[in-house]
Amino acid sequence: MAEPDKVLFTPGPLTTSRTVKQAMLRDLGSRDLEFVATVRDIRRRLLQLGAASQQDGFEAVLIQGSGTFGVESVISSALPGRGRLLALVNGAYGERIARLARVHGVPVREERRAEDSAFTAAEVAALLAAEPALTHVAIVHCETTTGLMNPVEAVADVVRAAGRRLVVDSMSAFGAVPVDLRRLQADFLVSSSNKCIEGVPGFAFVLARRDALLAAEGNARTLSLDLCAQWRGLEADGQFRFTPPVQAILAFARALDELDQEGGVAARARRYRDNQRVLLDGMRALGFRSYLPAAVQGPIIATFRYPGDPRFQFAEFYARLSAQGFVIYPGKLTQQPCFRIGNIGRIGTAEIEALLAAIGATARAMGFDPAAAP
Amino acid sequence: MAEPDKVLFTPGPLTTSRTVKQAMLRDLGSRDLEFVATVRDIRRRLLQLGAASQQDGFEAVLIQGSGTFGVESVISSALPGRGRLLALVNGAYGERIARLARVHGVPVREERRAEDSAFTAAEVAALLAAEPALTHVAIVHCETTTGLMNPVEAVADVVRAAGRRLVVDSMSAFGAVPVDLRRLQADFLVSSSNKCIEGVPGFAFVLARRDALLAAEGNARTLSLDLCAQWRGLEADGQFRFTPPVQAILAFARALDELDQEGGVAARARRYRDNQRVLLDGMRALGFRSYLPAAVQGPIIATFRYPGDPRFQFAEFYARLSAQGFVIYPGKLTQQPCFRIGNIGRIGTAEIEALLAAIGATARAMGFDPAAAP
Repeated sequence: MAEPDKVLFTPGPLTTSRTVKQAMLRDLGSRDLEFVATVRDIRRRLLQLGAASQQDGFEAVLIQGSGTFGVESVISSALPGRGRLLALVNGAYGERIARLARVHGVPVREERRAEDSAFTAAEVAALLAAEPALTHVAIVHCETTTGLMNPVEAVADVVRAAGRRLVVDSMSAFGAVPVDLRRLQADFLVSSSNKCIEGVPGFAFVLARRDALLAAEGNARTLSLDLCAQWRGLEADGQFRFTPPVQAILAFARALDELDQEGGVAARARRYRDNQRVLLDGMRALGFRSYLPAAVQGPIIATFRYPGDPRFQFAEFYARLSAQGFVIYPGKLTQQPCFRIGNIGRIGTAEIEALLAAIGATARAMGFDPAAAP
Repeated sequence: MAEPDKVLFTPGPLTTSRTVKQAMLRDLGSRDLEFVATVRDIRRRLLQLGAASQQDGFEAVLIQGSGTFGVESVISSALPGRGRLLALVNGAYGERIARLARVHGVPVREERRAEDSAFTAAEVAALLAAEPALTHVAIVHCETTTGLMNPVEAVADVVRAAGRRLVVDSMSAFGAVPVDLRRLQADFLVSSSNKCIEGVPGFAFVLARRDALLAAEGNARTLSLDLCAQWRGLEADGQFRFTPPVQAILAFARALDELDQEGGVAARARRYRDNQRVLLDGMRALGFRSYLPAAVQGPIIATFRYPGDPRFQFAEFYARLSAQGFVIYPGKLTQQPCFRIGNIGRIGTAEIEALLAAIGATARAMGFDPAAAP
């Protein structure tokens, strides 16, 4: 490659380490003993990252495809025909869960909040008390739409107290924030290979309570995304039912090694928080307005409002930054024009500082005032 | 890596070239212009491999996951609620299509033949004439269960003449045998990244008639595997709806380059046929019995009966070959104990000869007679 790749300030696919990518320079058969052992090890270590193990009654299941494939696997496999889902929606990924329920004919109560507003445990408790027919609750841990964090621990407590099952879409959070599955007792928690573990895209994973998997048996509405069958297959002989993304899995095993080397989730969380502090401080110093109140700002991605200056045109801003080697991310808000900057992946404050310098120079070159009121 | 990887004599994941794997040593954003251009180019070149283009009314759609995800995408997206599928079953992959139909509540007529027996066009014509309610026909091009080839061209002719739609599972065949989509006029043809194009696993692809996609609009029973929505997304802005397996796609683009360099499908078909001739001749010379009649033997994988000698134990045979660096494949027949040897991937007759020498030596070491009647 003549030029180095651009640095990705996105919510994934991310900039990964050279060594993670080099782990893909192999061909292993999907039934090969070494590969089967690698998959088994990954499943064990994913539970360990969630401070749990099979002995605690938890299971890890890998699902081919993107993170949405993993969420669809849970929604289409876990909900019984007589179930009813409470979908807590305050962003595009909450909307997606509600949509998945509708696609699969799962009765769903869609409870919406503004995109800058987190759900509270008390609200969820009241909703569950008011509607006994609700069997499951789904919540997004970190809404990548905005970067907002929902209080999943507190919500989990009231869901458990109300005797319902909990699905957590932890796509952008798992690996970046400490998760204690034994404390959380989420029935299903979903994330993917190309998020905060810093692997490459290719599969999702579901960390599940074994009793929730057993209770879901027979509910699957698809073959490829049948979560229980996938789990049974992996348990039976360690093999996937259908061809796994071998190289993405090898990269992920290496990524888990590198997460350990960094000092585990606590150290990674620290790096991401440092990245984000430098990002938010620097963007504000340039005059940009961040979208979320600090109280709900999660540590992986931040949303910024478009400056009100007509000389700010996002497409041009994006293209100019990209030409300088910095890939930022478009917005996804339904109401406000905005863009996003992720701070995860194999990047540190040096990369954030370089991005900030490029953003400042680009604003000057385009002649817009970042501080112009939207 | 201290040791070189084993050579894979499997139906995929395969042994790929070093340069195909090296194409994965990059991080590209999934909305990045270079990546979008790569995806567009792959879609165009896949149609070209099928001797077709968008101008001819064909479309190429990539679907994350394994080949089965691609087949499920077609079955769950293409069949209308009032449809009825004729599933032509002479192996495990035909069975899987029938099962997919059942999972999605698609009415299905399952027509079975022995695993060493191909369907004929006349049979299919008679089935369609006898049952006007049948709207779609699904057939497996090369049944990886055995290596058997079904006569898809002749079947396609009678399906078209009868005014029904055709789904071809060409997983193991596309790229290894010439396919002329304009001649074949299959409505949907499915293959995957890790078969005869010699990429790594991570996605499936569907080559479809545009009018068949348009007719399927609104039939999807899932979100992730919604074929029409995936097509619309790729057409709209060149992006996947959900995170694509970026590195597997980069590897595939390189694999397409290398297929061209080899001389296209004709040259690859020649190499695979040469590989298989050496394999079948060599195995027979050692005394092994191949399972399929020559008339239905496809060019990508061969099935061999277990020798009747009690000193032949497949697990030990497999492990000994694996220890010598040769990975063969277990059988999948419902009736006969057998094993399989694939001859696709980045291997030539030298690798086949080396495998044959190892098999001969292993038979002697284990003390079994390959020619012992089963």
